[in-house]
Amino acid sequence: MELRELFPVWNQLTESQRSELQNAAVLRRFKKGARLHGGSADCVGLLLVSSGVLRVFISSDEGREITLYRLFERDMCLFSASCMLHSIQFELYVEAQEDAEVYLIPPMTYKKLTSESLAAANYTNELMASRFSDVMFLLDQILNRSFDARLAALLLEESSIAQSNELHLTHDQIARHLGSAREVVTRMLRHFQAEGLAETGRGVVLIRDAARLERLAGAAQR
Amino acid sequence: MELRELFPVWNQLTESQRSELQNAAVLRRFKKGARLHGGSADCVGLLLVSSGVLRVFISSDEGREITLYRLFERDMCLFSASCMLHSIQFELYVEAQEDAEVYLIPPMTYKKLTSESLAAANYTNELMASRFSDVMFLLDQILNRSFDARLAALLLEESSIAQSNELHLTHDQIARHLGSAREVVTRMLRHFQAEGLAETGRGVVLIRDAARLERLAGAAQR
Repeated sequence: MELRELFPVWNQLTESQRSELQNAAVLRRFKKGARLHGGSADCVGLLLVSSGVLRVFISSDEGREITLYRLFERDMCLFSASCMLHSIQFELYVEAQEDAEVYLIPPMTYKKLTSESLAAANYTNELMASRFSDVMFLLDQILNRSFDARLAALLLEESSIAQSNELHLTHDQIARHLGSAREVVTRMLRHFQAEGLAETGRGVVLIRDAARLERLAGAAQR
Repeated sequence: MELRELFPVWNQLTESQRSELQNAAVLRRFKKGARLHGGSADCVGLLLVSSGVLRVFISSDEGREITLYRLFERDMCLFSASCMLHSIQFELYVEAQEDAEVYLIPPMTYKKLTSESLAAANYTNELMASRFSDVMFLLDQILNRSFDARLAALLLEESSIAQSNELHLTHDQIARHLGSAREVVTRMLRHFQAEGLAETGRGVVLIRDAARLERLAGAAQR
């Protein structure tokens, strides 16, 4: 897709702002599993997703990962341009969950744009508030929800992304989404299998009873 | 303090923007423990701290609390004006941790301001990024740090706010900062006491060995 179709406030930019953005942005392709951004030192710029899915996550000192949110077509990642905002002081990683096409917008181009365009500055505010909500939701999940409910919710979310009941996910990948250990995931999936909720094979999870998973995901507040 | 001394981009506002802000803002006094904002339905407006300390926290379904961050003189709370930003969909509470004087700025006044003033819009961006960093730090703490390290860090933080080694805090209040249960706090404080790190009495915690608490707070990454 063209940048002008993807960039949210394109119509509110001036001619020169548009051409500056157009000239600076680069469309790049990333294979599934590729790392687009790692840590705050790495200021690759803003990521604007043209196709595919990106996963944004944090990583603990011992390499345990937890997924913050996913980015889909038209979504934009601000935090990969951490050098743009002084106040950002955290490490965040972005990788392609599926093959993806992504526009890279250099941080200084975007910084100039927001310093000139009210529309771009206020769009950035909404974007940040929206990501903030995602992270607050995650925090709420971690504090309030039992592990079985979080696993059920993840399986349903992945199923909706893949539009299939057959999920190509290893126990290790699931653990990395949920910030947990592989053994914990294996144990819970075995429990799900015994309950007839899901079935697991080599690198595959089959959803058997989406309705009950949904009840579990929604109801099991501790 | 006057609004013009507190509001960060005052000098970059036009005369009419300044007087609009000045006319709309109300200075209010809150007693220690008073609730300023509760939940997203409650859109009291932006809070700009003139004196005192505010505590911003979330609360679980069963009433367990966890402190997100504290606001001091000159700090501003955006999320108490959740109706201003469409994308905010989380419940957040604000209360006075100490007696406080706070300017309330109506959400619509601030929304109008950010829609007119680039300086205000970009300041809002920095503010949001800074709060985002606070919450990411908390998330990192929860995922990576053992409970004794988090408790040690909280005691040192409270001591620095109170500028005293004698903290007027109940075990229940500490539990609410850390999103934990009172019994867990009591057990750990007993351990701290046995180790000569701190001493507890009725509603009081005395810091006995700040240096070792600091080592514990910093080093005990799991």
